[in-house]
Amino acid sequence: MNTNMEKPYVVGIDIGGTNTVFGIVDARGTVLASSSIKTGAYTEVEDYVNEVCKHLLPLLEANGGVDKIKGIGIGAPNGNYYTGTIEFAPNLPWRGVIPLAALFEQRLGIPTALTNDANAAAIGEMTYGAARGMKDFIMITLGTGVGSGIVINGQLVYGHDGFAGELGHVIIRRDGRLCGCGRHGCLETYCSATGVARTAREFLTASTEPSLLRSIPSESITSKDVYDAAVKGDQLAVNIFNFTGTILGEALADAIAFSSPEAIILFGGLAKSGEYIFKPIQESIDKNVLNIYKGKTKLLMSELKDADAAVLGASALGWEIK
Amino acid sequence: MNTNMEKPYVVGIDIGGTNTVFGIVDARGTVLASSSIKTGAYTEVEDYVNEVCKHLLPLLEANGGVDKIKGIGIGAPNGNYYTGTIEFAPNLPWRGVIPLAALFEQRLGIPTALTNDANAAAIGEMTYGAARGMKDFIMITLGTGVGSGIVINGQLVYGHDGFAGELGHVIIRRDGRLCGCGRHGCLETYCSATGVARTAREFLTASTEPSLLRSIPSESITSKDVYDAAVKGDQLAVNIFNFTGTILGEALADAIAFSSPEAIILFGGLAKSGEYIFKPIQESIDKNVLNIYKGKTKLLMSELKDADAAVLGASALGWEIK
Repeated sequence: MNTNMEKPYVVGIDIGGTNTVFGIVDARGTVLASSSIKTGAYTEVEDYVNEVCKHLLPLLEANGGVDKIKGIGIGAPNGNYYTGTIEFAPNLPWRGVIPLAALFEQRLGIPTALTNDANAAAIGEMTYGAARGMKDFIMITLGTGVGSGIVINGQLVYGHDGFAGELGHVIIRRDGRLCGCGRHGCLETYCSATGVARTAREFLTASTEPSLLRSIPSESITSKDVYDAAVKGDQLAVNIFNFTGTILGEALADAIAFSSPEAIILFGGLAKSGEYIFKPIQESIDKNVLNIYKGKTKLLMSELKDADAAVLGASALGWEIK
Repeated sequence: MNTNMEKPYVVGIDIGGTNTVFGIVDARGTVLASSSIKTGAYTEVEDYVNEVCKHLLPLLEANGGVDKIKGIGIGAPNGNYYTGTIEFAPNLPWRGVIPLAALFEQRLGIPTALTNDANAAAIGEMTYGAARGMKDFIMITLGTGVGSGIVINGQLVYGHDGFAGELGHVIIRRDGRLCGCGRHGCLETYCSATGVARTAREFLTASTEPSLLRSIPSESITSKDVYDAAVKGDQLAVNIFNFTGTILGEALADAIAFSSPEAIILFGGLAKSGEYIFKPIQESIDKNVLNIYKGKTKLLMSELKDADAAVLGASALGWEIK
C-alpha cells in the first residue's frame, strides 16, 4: 500500500446489478463516508456517472476535497482491469463495452482502476482483512454465483486478457446441472446460494424425509432458509450443506494443485453459514487434496465487515494505482 | 535474462530417475558441451555430486572455467525452488530431504537454483522457446506422468510452499482410474504416455474391433505403438488419441478459467503425436471452455529441441538467479 500524507484516502465504488455503493476509505480500512444509488435507474452510463458524482462530491468536500484522494477503485461485474472497461455485463443496464474507469477519471480528475467484484474482494482482503501479509491466496465469493480472486506472488491474477479467475465456472460434474453460462456442471450451479436452493428442491423431491423446509413453497426456498432449518437441527438441511461443502472442497482441492495457496478465504452470504458449510468443505479438501498439499492450506472466513465489504474491496484497488 | 560479458554461460543439470544430463549453455540456448551419468548408480548423494562434478569440471575448463558461469539451474523430480531441496522423490536413490542446490553450490562455488522438471521446462520455453515474450502461459509435459509449469505475470508459480502446479493431479474423472498418488481419476492416469497405453488396453478389451494393436502383447503396448498404428490408419488407435485429447482438453478448459493464459504449450513424447493428439485437444478446449475465453488461448508445441530440452530447461533457471 502506497499511502502518503497529502493523499491519505481512496474511493471505492462497488457496482451491483441492484445498487451501487461508494465511499471514502482511509489506510486502516475505515469507511469515512458512504452513500448509494440504484444502478438500474440510469439507462445512459453518462447519467449514471453524473449521479454517482453528484452524491460523491459532497462527501469528498466534507473530507478535504478531491486532492486528498490517491485513487478510485471500482468493482464491477465483467470488469476488465487492463482496459478499465465493463464488457457485456448481462445484469447491468449498459450494453457492449463501457469505458467506466475513463469516464470517472475524466469527470473527477482522479486516477481510477476497475476490476471485477471478486478480484476487488481479494485485494480488499489483502489490504484490510484476513489475507494481510499473504502473497498466495484464493478468495472465493459465494453469492448468487461463485466468484474468485486469485493472488499469486502478491499480485492479482488477471491473465493475458484481464478475465482470469473464474473458478465458479470450472466443471465439477461432467454433464451436471445446466449453468447460466450455457454449459453443464459448473461449480456455481452447486455451490452458490442459488445452487444450494436448487439442491434443496432436488433433495425434497428425491425423498419423503420430513423437513422444516417442506413448509416453504419449493420455488421460494433460499439458502438462508436452509441455514435456519439446519440451526434447528433439520437433518435434510444439514445434508444439503454437506453435499454443497463436499463439492466445493473437491473444486478447492484441484485449485490447490494449481497455485498451492497459503489460504483460501470464503466470502459472501453462504460463507456465513459457519460450521455447517466450513466443516464439510474442510473434510472434502482433506479427503481430495494431493498428499504433498495435505494440511497446508488454511480455510478462512473473510474478515471484511459485511456492510463495508463491497466498498472496502473496491477502494483497496485505489491504493494499487501507480 | 540477465547476461553479461564476464559470465556469459549457465549450467543446466536435469535429474531423471535413470539419467542425469548436464551441459553448458549460452544466452541464445546453444548447448556448448554436455555429458551424462546414471542417476541410480550412486546411493550416497555426495558420491553423486562428486561424479557430476568430475564430468562437468573438464567441460567448464574447456569453455573458460567456472568464472564464466552465471548460475547453475537444476531440474529434478519433487524439487522445491524455495529451499533448493529434493523432497521425498520416489524415483531417486536418496531418501528424505536432500539439499542438492547447496551441495553443488559448495562444491563449485557457483550460485545454484533448483526446481521440478516441468517448471524447468516452462522457464526453458520462456527463455529459448515458444513462450519467448509471453507473460502468461502454461507448460504441460506429457511423459510417464503429466507435469505442468505455470507462468503468471512473467513469473513461475511456486505457491506458498514451492510445490504449486501439479495439473497432472487435478481430478478429471471423479472415482476414475487409480493413480500412483493413491487417489482416483487424476489427469495423468488418462493423458500421460502410460495413460494412453492403459486406454489402449481398455479399448482392446472392450470391443472386438480389428486393430494393428492386437498383434502386440497387451501389457507391452506403448503410446508410441498407438501412434504408429494411427499413422497407418488404424481407427482404434485414432479413437484412443481422440479419447485422450478430449479429456486433456476438458482439463485445459478448466485451467484457462484459472489463469487465462496466452498459450498452453505441450511438451514430451506424446506431444509429438502431432495432429492425432492436437486436434482432439483443440476441439475439446473449444467445446468446454467458458465463452469469454473462446478462441483466445493458443495451443502450441514446445520449440525446445528434443536432445537438448532437458538441459536447456534446467539451464534457463541459471539466468534467473539474482
